[in-house]
Amino acid sequence: MRTYPSQNPAGTLTVDTGRGVTAPRGFVAGATTAGFKASGTPDLALVANEGPHHAVAAVYTTNRVSAAPVQWSKATTADGRAAAVVLNSGGANACTGPQGFQAAHRTAELVGEALGIGAGDVVVCSTGLIGVQLPMDVMERGIPAVVRALADDDAAGAAAAQAIMTTDTVAKQASYVRDGWTVGGMAKGAGMLAPGLATMLVVLTTDADMSSDALQWALDDAVKLTFNRTDSDGCMSTNDTVVLLGSGASGIKPDEFEFSQAVTAVCHSLAQQLITDAEGASHDIEITTVNAQTEKQAEDVSRTVARSNLFKTAIFGNDPNWGRVLSAVGTTDARFDADRLDVTINGVMVCRNGMIGDPREGVDLAADRKVTVLIDLKAGDADATVWTNDLTHDYVEENSAYSS
Amino acid sequence: MRTYPSQNPAGTLTVDTGRGVTAPRGFVAGATTAGFKASGTPDLALVANEGPHHAVAAVYTTNRVSAAPVQWSKATTADGRAAAVVLNSGGANACTGPQGFQAAHRTAELVGEALGIGAGDVVVCSTGLIGVQLPMDVMERGIPAVVRALADDDAAGAAAAQAIMTTDTVAKQASYVRDGWTVGGMAKGAGMLAPGLATMLVVLTTDADMSSDALQWALDDAVKLTFNRTDSDGCMSTNDTVVLLGSGASGIKPDEFEFSQAVTAVCHSLAQQLITDAEGASHDIEITTVNAQTEKQAEDVSRTVARSNLFKTAIFGNDPNWGRVLSAVGTTDARFDADRLDVTINGVMVCRNGMIGDPREGVDLAADRKVTVLIDLKAGDADATVWTNDLTHDYVEENSAYSS
Repeated sequence: MRTYPSQNPAGTLTVDTGRGVTAPRGFVAGATTAGFKASGTPDLALVANEGPHHAVAAVYTTNRVSAAPVQWSKATTADGRAAAVVLNSGGANACTGPQGFQAAHRTAELVGEALGIGAGDVVVCSTGLIGVQLPMDVMERGIPAVVRALADDDAAGAAAAQAIMTTDTVAKQASYVRDGWTVGGMAKGAGMLAPGLATMLVVLTTDADMSSDALQWALDDAVKLTFNRTDSDGCMSTNDTVVLLGSGASGIKPDEFEFSQAVTAVCHSLAQQLITDAEGASHDIEITTVNAQTEKQAEDVSRTVARSNLFKTAIFGNDPNWGRVLSAVGTTDARFDADRLDVTINGVMVCRNGMIGDPREGVDLAADRKVTVLIDLKAGDADATVWTNDLTHDYVEENSAYSS
Repeated sequence: MRTYPSQNPAGTLTVDTGRGVTAPRGFVAGATTAGFKASGTPDLALVANEGPHHAVAAVYTTNRVSAAPVQWSKATTADGRAAAVVLNSGGANACTGPQGFQAAHRTAELVGEALGIGAGDVVVCSTGLIGVQLPMDVMERGIPAVVRALADDDAAGAAAAQAIMTTDTVAKQASYVRDGWTVGGMAKGAGMLAPGLATMLVVLTTDADMSSDALQWALDDAVKLTFNRTDSDGCMSTNDTVVLLGSGASGIKPDEFEFSQAVTAVCHSLAQQLITDAEGASHDIEITTVNAQTEKQAEDVSRTVARSNLFKTAIFGNDPNWGRVLSAVGTTDARFDADRLDVTINGVMVCRNGMIGDPREGVDLAADRKVTVLIDLKAGDADATVWTNDLTHDYVEENSAYSS
């Protein structure tokens, strides 16, 4: 039985999952039940940056069919400045044409009027069913209510995290405190996680005094190693957005590397919470490829295995089926010699040099939700980890019954 | 309601699914229960070419983790000459190292000795669980029995088609007769169909008098438009093999285009039979992308939709979810304008210019096993069709319970 260190890209930083976007100073959050969702649960959230600075960085879906709020928000954050993020569940406002873009624009205007800021400083995020226009009468009534709900305490942050849920079963928050400055965040998304994000909305906040460029560098690094390597079902959404707001309220300018590590730690925690809550999954799977020629090849191998439906169903059946791992690895262009591949599942080398490993050591996948797969390409010294889930009856059930 | 012509790449040629590899003259086939399968069903098949010619063409998996029989057969068919194909179910002989290659070689020797031909003229195919050595005592006993069973009638061809089944529920055969010459074939494979083939074994025979080069041209064309566009779950096997044997026994040299069309017609029929029998599927889905800039872009778009688990579960739920189609299309590099995309499902334009189409026309997917999806990119004049299945509870069940 071999053991490997944690694949947490942020190392050993300790994250608090009990606090979110209001953990840093300078931020207020709120939520309300506007009426977008038939279920009658909260469906409108707002996060506002009270300054003194209003820096912003953002990463959006690379899906070329992008939703109206993504198109709006890309334009508003291009100048590195934003003061609020408004998010609704109960409707994606995607594939809705000019009327949909107008709805996103009007939403930003309503928030701007209520907060006394410009519409161009309001980021808009939506999640829910594609192809349906947002009911703007609901939005008109909802925005004053969510503005009235704004507060700077933990309960307000938690309420916002709750209001953005769709098929999520739990709200996702994380925060990290260091030397007088803090990074906080909330996320929604379950099931449609994918490459380049995926029906995932994430709002991050910090009171560190960073320029929008420094925020963007830190965010790009963090997203690359966390959300972009979280691949539940290989599908990419039209609405994915990750926004990082900087208030500068701590008055502290942290070291850029330390700040980047903090953002990565919060993103890693949120990404792990997303995987754990993915639709219908019974196993969380961590696939690490080591000794690849390049990091890109390592990531490609891990991701290809993560997307193999045959592998994912085997794990659901608690079958440590290394043949399906090798079969997936063989479809990549990564450098390796098929006769030298090793595969280790939950610490047991089930495949050694492309053949069966030590069959005397059993691998009991039923005992634990977590499954770790380590693929040794023996072709270099680069590595990469991708996180995914097993493919289960409940995944099929939720995604065949829930229109999204 | 718009209608579109059939996407059969062979046009309107009429194929007989009641006869297979023994339909052309010059071929004998046989099957036996050697004992590879615990189930006690037939598991060893042999197809022999009695000449006068012994031309061969073949296409193999592009998976870089290829099984020992694939490595053996690639070498034997490189000279364009082969006289027999031996196929076992109950064991893939993949990831079995030098001992596995020796087993494939020994299998060819045993067949060669029994038929009085060289081992180098014997193609070997295996299917079943990866990572387990073939029991060669079973092979030693089985080969004399399968040679004794050889006959040139329809029943012998059908028995061979039966013996190569694994999770298949029905044997797959097809033949096409034209002007004194015939193409016949059999196939196995269910579930793991994929790009570049996939746990699929296909033996084709013809009595047309064609050189091995002409056979290869026809086979490459046919495979490209049929098996390579049949993508059940995106997974590619280590063992896929398509072999075409030419006896020349008709004494007729057909026109190369007519011959190519005939091979394509037989391959299309076998590919459709594979899709219809795919593990646990409840819908066969035909995805055609039209007006693409290039055929490659059209194929890429169709294949990307075919691999979207969200789309495939929606179809299982009888939900004509065009948002999931657009979301998948948006992840490709094909040329298109998101605001001009049309999607037609079962003849109803559900999405027009990137927005909802005519919602008054219902699409009832529950009524029929077949689902047709037409995506209009409005970017050129190329098109391509990919066939797949829905993602169902039974797929998860079969692939989590059956080790392969």
